[in-house]
Amino acid sequence: MVLVRPIGVFDSGVGGLTVLKALRRELPGRDFIYLGDTARVPYGRKPREMVQAFAYGITAYLVDCGVEAVVVACNTATAAALPGLRDEFEVPIWGVIDPGVEAARRATRTRFVGVIGTRGAIHSGAYQARLEAYGLKVWARPCPLFVHLVEEGLAETDEADMLTHYYLDGCPDFDTLILGCTHYPVLRGVIQRVVGPAVRLVGSDETTAELVKKELGPCDHGTGHITHLVTGDVLSYQHTAQVIGGVDGEIRALDVTRLAALQKAV
Amino acid sequence: MVLVRPIGVFDSGVGGLTVLKALRRELPGRDFIYLGDTARVPYGRKPREMVQAFAYGITAYLVDCGVEAVVVACNTATAAALPGLRDEFEVPIWGVIDPGVEAARRATRTRFVGVIGTRGAIHSGAYQARLEAYGLKVWARPCPLFVHLVEEGLAETDEADMLTHYYLDGCPDFDTLILGCTHYPVLRGVIQRVVGPAVRLVGSDETTAELVKKELGPCDHGTGHITHLVTGDVLSYQHTAQVIGGVDGEIRALDVTRLAALQKAV
Repeated sequence: MVLVRPIGVFDSGVGGLTVLKALRRELPGRDFIYLGDTARVPYGRKPREMVQAFAYGITAYLVDCGVEAVVVACNTATAAALPGLRDEFEVPIWGVIDPGVEAARRATRTRFVGVIGTRGAIHSGAYQARLEAYGLKVWARPCPLFVHLVEEGLAETDEADMLTHYYLDGCPDFDTLILGCTHYPVLRGVIQRVVGPAVRLVGSDETTAELVKKELGPCDHGTGHITHLVTGDVLSYQHTAQVIGGVDGEIRALDVTRLAALQKAV
Repeated sequence: MVLVRPIGVFDSGVGGLTVLKALRRELPGRDFIYLGDTARVPYGRKPREMVQAFAYGITAYLVDCGVEAVVVACNTATAAALPGLRDEFEVPIWGVIDPGVEAARRATRTRFVGVIGTRGAIHSGAYQARLEAYGLKVWARPCPLFVHLVEEGLAETDEADMLTHYYLDGCPDFDTLILGCTHYPVLRGVIQRVVGPAVRLVGSDETTAELVKKELGPCDHGTGHITHLVTGDVLSYQHTAQVIGGVDGEIRALDVTRLAALQKAV
């Protein structure tokens, strides 16, 4: 039997767990190492070069752990660092932006797509450029407090309702909306209510997992284990991860200086 | 000349910098060590026992550094851990709750006081119990997203306006409002507009600094240096600290596992 190497998945915090959950559903036999960089969350408003350096250090660490492939389960890191990472490392690396763009392109009938995300992801223009390259019309808006609604466990509250109305009321008449942040699938309910049932919501969680499954192929002889490596506090990570659910596994502390030692600009 | 030992100040993140800024204004000759536990921010919704253990570990670390006194510049940590810390350590330790309560007691004419803070601080009932012990009527409300408005640099935006209206519109007719979180002085402008000019806002920044000055006495032969010890990323801390301003000093990374090794429940 061939040894099956794990798949590395990383995010600035707990948001990428929505992607991990979808990956586990699509690839139940695979092992995963999830690295949550909670010591340095959020990435969304940090300088681009800083996010690139973080992403390089994390990928180098995961490669040292022997992963077969890496999923950048963070829109901000994908926007800032994916091309650079692919140049630097030999393992396959996927981001969460291209799968979302592909899904939106297939879903839209009116050829008008909306996208929401952190300030880092939206201001990078990564979604907009890809969608426009397909000749699609694009509306984009940063929603900087959505991450905190999720991290604070406020997804089903008046605050979520109010902020969703604030960010999305009066938005133009697109038929497909990309949830361009891995935290946002947790807010799917309230976002759908505000934009109305006619708008198709595209999350990067499912679409990324489908792509990875297609490219890596099936695997029925792994153990299905998840190992979580967390740079911030383990107990508080565990606490927050329960909000996402479906990603049980061993949780280990990882000293953030070990990542910092590996990092460089890409 | 007698060696002047520094004053230790700590918070879950950057919020306590508002207190440090006020301390520096009141005690310009003093040296300070500010410990920002940004690897584990926010404390506001973490279990009480976890916050107690964090506060114990940080205080033990600061005492090992040779501080003369400790300021718990975090409402959540003050509410959860102050009495326990005072039992365990011999240096003077001040929190931010009693100074705010004293200032509100002196300020109120109608004997009706409001208090806002994180969920941890408000649900602990620490402010309410102290104010009611003085025979004052109290209205209290957690405002869980205010911390994130400040950390995201959104203090002067529509989101701040909207959330402040949401949390404070229709609040009863108190004449004094305690800003029961060290981040909130950054939101002083919008809060004052929403509650109206007749309400006196009491921040824990100035009131705590005045108390520490009164109890420690003057000092004109220190060097006035601030050393920042940060458990999360140094660059992002620096970035956020600039929003507060007035707290320039050397910034050093501190491995959070060194604090975790010292911590115990108090």
